[in-house]
Amino acid sequence: MPEITLAIDCLGNDLGPQTILEATCHALNEHSFLRVKYVGDSDLINESLSNLEPSQQSLHQNLCANGRVEIIHASMAIRMNDKPSYAFRHKDKTSMGIALKLVADGKADGVVSSGNTAALVLLSRYYIKLFAEIEKPAISTVLPSQNGFTRVLDLGASIDCNSEALFYFGVMGVVLSKTVDNVANPRVGLLNIGTEEVKGNDKIKQASVLMKEIRDVDYLGFVEGNDIYTSNLDVVVCDGFVGNAVLKASEGLTRYFAYLINHKLLQGFRGKIMQWLIKPTIKQLKDEINPDRYNGASFVGLEKVVVKSHGNANVSALQFAIKEAVEQIRCQVPDKIKETLNNLLISEK
Amino acid sequence: MPEITLAIDCLGNDLGPQTILEATCHALNEHSFLRVKYVGDSDLINESLSNLEPSQQSLHQNLCANGRVEIIHASMAIRMNDKPSYAFRHKDKTSMGIALKLVADGKADGVVSSGNTAALVLLSRYYIKLFAEIEKPAISTVLPSQNGFTRVLDLGASIDCNSEALFYFGVMGVVLSKTVDNVANPRVGLLNIGTEEVKGNDKIKQASVLMKEIRDVDYLGFVEGNDIYTSNLDVVVCDGFVGNAVLKASEGLTRYFAYLINHKLLQGFRGKIMQWLIKPTIKQLKDEINPDRYNGASFVGLEKVVVKSHGNANVSALQFAIKEAVEQIRCQVPDKIKETLNNLLISEK
Repeated sequence: MPEITLAIDCLGNDLGPQTILEATCHALNEHSFLRVKYVGDSDLINESLSNLEPSQQSLHQNLCANGRVEIIHASMAIRMNDKPSYAFRHKDKTSMGIALKLVADGKADGVVSSGNTAALVLLSRYYIKLFAEIEKPAISTVLPSQNGFTRVLDLGASIDCNSEALFYFGVMGVVLSKTVDNVANPRVGLLNIGTEEVKGNDKIKQASVLMKEIRDVDYLGFVEGNDIYTSNLDVVVCDGFVGNAVLKASEGLTRYFAYLINHKLLQGFRGKIMQWLIKPTIKQLKDEINPDRYNGASFVGLEKVVVKSHGNANVSALQFAIKEAVEQIRCQVPDKIKETLNNLLISEK
Repeated sequence: MPEITLAIDCLGNDLGPQTILEATCHALNEHSFLRVKYVGDSDLINESLSNLEPSQQSLHQNLCANGRVEIIHASMAIRMNDKPSYAFRHKDKTSMGIALKLVADGKADGVVSSGNTAALVLLSRYYIKLFAEIEKPAISTVLPSQNGFTRVLDLGASIDCNSEALFYFGVMGVVLSKTVDNVANPRVGLLNIGTEEVKGNDKIKQASVLMKEIRDVDYLGFVEGNDIYTSNLDVVVCDGFVGNAVLKASEGLTRYFAYLINHKLLQGFRGKIMQWLIKPTIKQLKDEINPDRYNGASFVGLEKVVVKSHGNANVSALQFAIKEAVEQIRCQVPDKIKETLNNLLISEK
C-alpha cells in the first residue's frame, strides 16, 4: 500500500485540537501507510498532545520521531461566523488555508477540516483546481435509510445549478457510490416535486435527459424527498440549496423526535423501566442512526480529496470523517472522477 | 354566525366517499351554520350514505331534507397519476372541476379536495382568481415543532419563485398565522442555506430586504431547515421546490423512525413489555405528532378558500382538513389577505 499523507485542520473543531488528536490515533494505529500533518497553533497542539492518555502520547511521540506525524504551525483559525472574504484575506495564516495549500503543493493527499463550510468551499476552490468540466463542486454524504443508506449531493456547496451541473453531480455521485460505497450498479434518482415526467421546471427535465446518458447506472428518473429515507436508491441528486434545506430539516426533525422520546416517553416511573428495557437495543439502534457514522461530507469536483467534518464532532464522529478521507484517497476517488469525465468526453466525440 | 357553504370533492380520496361523508358528519354536527355540497358520482355517494352508521345516516337524511346537504353529480374523477392537462380537458365533468366551479359561481365559499395536487393548483387558478398582486400562489400548512408548530409556505404550488413571490408568501403566511393560528405578532424567517446575511443568492437576499417591510411581524431574517422543527418561529418562507423537498423528506424520515421503533425497539420480549408500558404516553404523544392533525394544506393567493387533504387521509385526518377550510372561511382569510395587500399598496404610494 503506497503512503498516504493527510493534512488535518486542527483549529476548526468546537471541542478543540485534543479531540482531533484522539480521533487520529485510531487511524494511525490501523494504517501503517498513513502519515498525518496537524495544522494549527503549535503550542496548542503540543499542549493537547501532552493531555492525551499515555498510550496515545507515546504513539504520537514515536510517530513524530519517525516523521509519520508532523505539526505545522498556523497562527489563525477561521471561526464559524467569519465571512468567506475574511477567510480568503487571511488564508496564508489560517490552519484551513495552510492545510489546503499543503495539498495544492503536493505535500499532502487530502484534507480533513471541521471549519466553516463556506470558507472551506471558497479556499478549496482557490487552492485545489476543479476538474475542467466541473463548474460547480458538490458536497456529498450518505444518509441513513430504511434499506441501508442513500448518498445525496449537493448538500450546499453550489446553488442555482443548471441542468449540466446537476448531471455532473450525478456522474460524481455514481463514482462515489461505486468506489466508496461499493455499489456495483448504483440506483440514481433526481430530486423533484413529483415523480411524473411532467413535474418540475425545464432545468430539471433537461437534467433528467442528460442523466440517462450516465453509464453503468440504474437511473430511476425523478424521485421525491421521502425516497431518500425509504427507498432503495443509492444516489439522490439535487441543487445545493435544496439539499442543504433537506439535510438541515432532517437534523431538526431528528432533534425534535429525540426531544419527544426523552421528554415524553422516557419520563416518570414507566419511563425509568423503559430506559432500562431499552438499553440492549439502543446500542444496535445507535449503530444505525448514530449521526457519528454519517460525519464526513466530501467535496467533489476537486482534483484532491477534501472532507468536511461537523464543527461539533466528537472523537467518534471525527474518526468517521478521517476514515472517509483515507478511504477516498486510497480509492483514488478524484482520479476515478477524472477518468469518468474523460470517458464522457470520448463518448460524446 | 352567517351561513357557510363548503363544496367537498368526494372522488379524490383513496379510501372512497364514505370516509369523506363520515368526516363531514363531525363538522355538520358541530356547526349549525355549515352547509355542504358533496360533489362526485351520485350513485356512489348515495351508496356510501346507506353504508354509514344509523346516527350518521339520519343526520344526512335530515340535512338533505332541509337543504343543508346537497349531492351534485360528477361523472369523472381525477386520479393521482392523471396529468394536469387531462384534468384541464375534463374539468367540466370531474368532481374537482365542478366543486371549484361552484365556488367560482358563488354557490360555495370554499373547497376541500383530496385529489391530485397539480390538477388542483391548475384548476383552482383557472376557476378562482388570484389576487392582482399575486403571480404565484402557495400551499401552506403547519408542521409540528419543539415549541408548538411552524407554518411553512410554499410547499409545492410554485417553483422558481423570484424575490417578490417570496415576499408575498411572507405576507400571506403572516395573515394565516394571525387569523388561523392566533399568533398576534408572528415570528417569520426566510429559509436559506445559512443564517448569515452573506449567505444565499441575490434573489433570497432581495427577498429578505422586502420582508423587512411587512408590518406587525417579528422578521428574524434567514433561518435554516432545522429551525422549522426546533426554533420558536411561527412562519417559514421558501420556494415551492425547496418546501416540497423538505416536507416530503420529513415524511420519509418520520416513516424511517417509525420503522426503527417498530422493527428494532418494540421487538422481542422486552419490546412486548415496552409496548405495554408505552401505551399511556403514546396517546399524548399521538396528539402532538399525529399526522392527522396536520392534514389540510391551504392554497393561498386565491380569492376563495381551497384546502387540499392528503389523498390517503382517514376520517380523523379529513376532519382536520374540513375544520381548516371552515375556519378559513369563517375568519375570512382571503379577505384579510386582500386587505393586507391593499394596505401594502397604500403604504407604497
